[in-house]
Amino acid sequence: MKRIHSTIVATIGNDGHPQVRAIDIMLIESGKPIFLTARGKAFYDQLISQKFVALSGVKEGCSISLRGKVRKAEPNLMEKIFEQNPYMQTIYPPSARSALTVFELYEGQGEYFDLNSRPIYRQSFTIGGAEKNKLQYTVTSACSGCGLCLEICPQHCIEWNGKKARIQPEHCLHCGLCFERCPQQAVVRTDESE
Amino acid sequence: MKRIHSTIVATIGNDGHPQVRAIDIMLIESGKPIFLTARGKAFYDQLISQKFVALSGVKEGCSISLRGKVRKAEPNLMEKIFEQNPYMQTIYPPSARSALTVFELYEGQGEYFDLNSRPIYRQSFTIGGAEKNKLQYTVTSACSGCGLCLEICPQHCIEWNGKKARIQPEHCLHCGLCFERCPQQAVVRTDESE
Repeated sequence: MKRIHSTIVATIGNDGHPQVRAIDIMLIESGKPIFLTARGKAFYDQLISQKFVALSGVKEGCSISLRGKVRKAEPNLMEKIFEQNPYMQTIYPPSARSALTVFELYEGQGEYFDLNSRPIYRQSFTIGGAEKNKLQYTVTSACSGCGLCLEICPQHCIEWNGKKARIQPEHCLHCGLCFERCPQQAVVRTDESE
Repeated sequence: MKRIHSTIVATIGNDGHPQVRAIDIMLIESGKPIFLTARGKAFYDQLISQKFVALSGVKEGCSISLRGKVRKAEPNLMEKIFEQNPYMQTIYPPSARSALTVFELYEGQGEYFDLNSRPIYRQSFTIGGAEKNKLQYTVTSACSGCGLCLEICPQHCIEWNGKKARIQPEHCLHCGLCFERCPQQAVVRTDESE
């Protein structure tokens, strides 16, 4: 997260649909992204009532996404935020800082995704002890070894281990083609993902 | 939207909380952002069932956010997408393109936000005939002309028109300080915003 400063943060709007806005990650404290917002914004109300966000940032074809629980952070982080992000000083001069509240995303599941490499590369992670996401596509023992999935995979990320096909989760696009193609229905989708 | 290719798109996950992922805007067709995804992804299922997304992209301190209705687009846009976005060809080679579906955001409300300029600058817009968002903070005729809001505004975007204070909506941070400070409660919050 240290490399990606500018992120998009999603909450749920009054109409029940998702709502997003650009939010800078001001600090990373003990692995937790720290951001702030003003009490006058709908975003503030949503943070207080929903206690959850999903955020993502992109840089040079790589993205980091993280979703999880949010709470107010130590107010004394405000000083450090303005020190380390001097551009904030002209947006919120000292007389206006009382409008701001500091928040932290303290427990959640994330994924790093590199769309530049071939095959693509992804890796999931957690912060604050959240349970790790299960993989989305795996091959069961129903695999007959026909090899159709190895052929169809656009990232060539399915390997043959002598007994059955194996999907390399760190290179899987989750496109679903192997799942659709397998004549044995041996490819299963085990959990939701991006 | 033409300048921002890489966006973050939010839907609602199975757990009822927002979910985000990086999605490139492949084309703009008649003002509508066009993107694609694979049937194997949870994102695909969410697009089909929710028919709504919120998306946002950032570039050099400027952001564009847009939220609204989504539907499948003309499948014949696929060809144009791969022509104009050649990097896609190595992610989804021709044999794998059948996994993909093209979507368009055809009606929605958006906002352009420039955090670089002082005062900050924002402008709302709509596509596909959606109703425009109302402004968030305005001053009613209860204004007594005391000038406290002009002093507190961190962006100095409240002006005095001879009769009452007026908030310049294109420069308003929505921080809420004028709303909190006004002794006459003449500042009202009229609609949700970012």
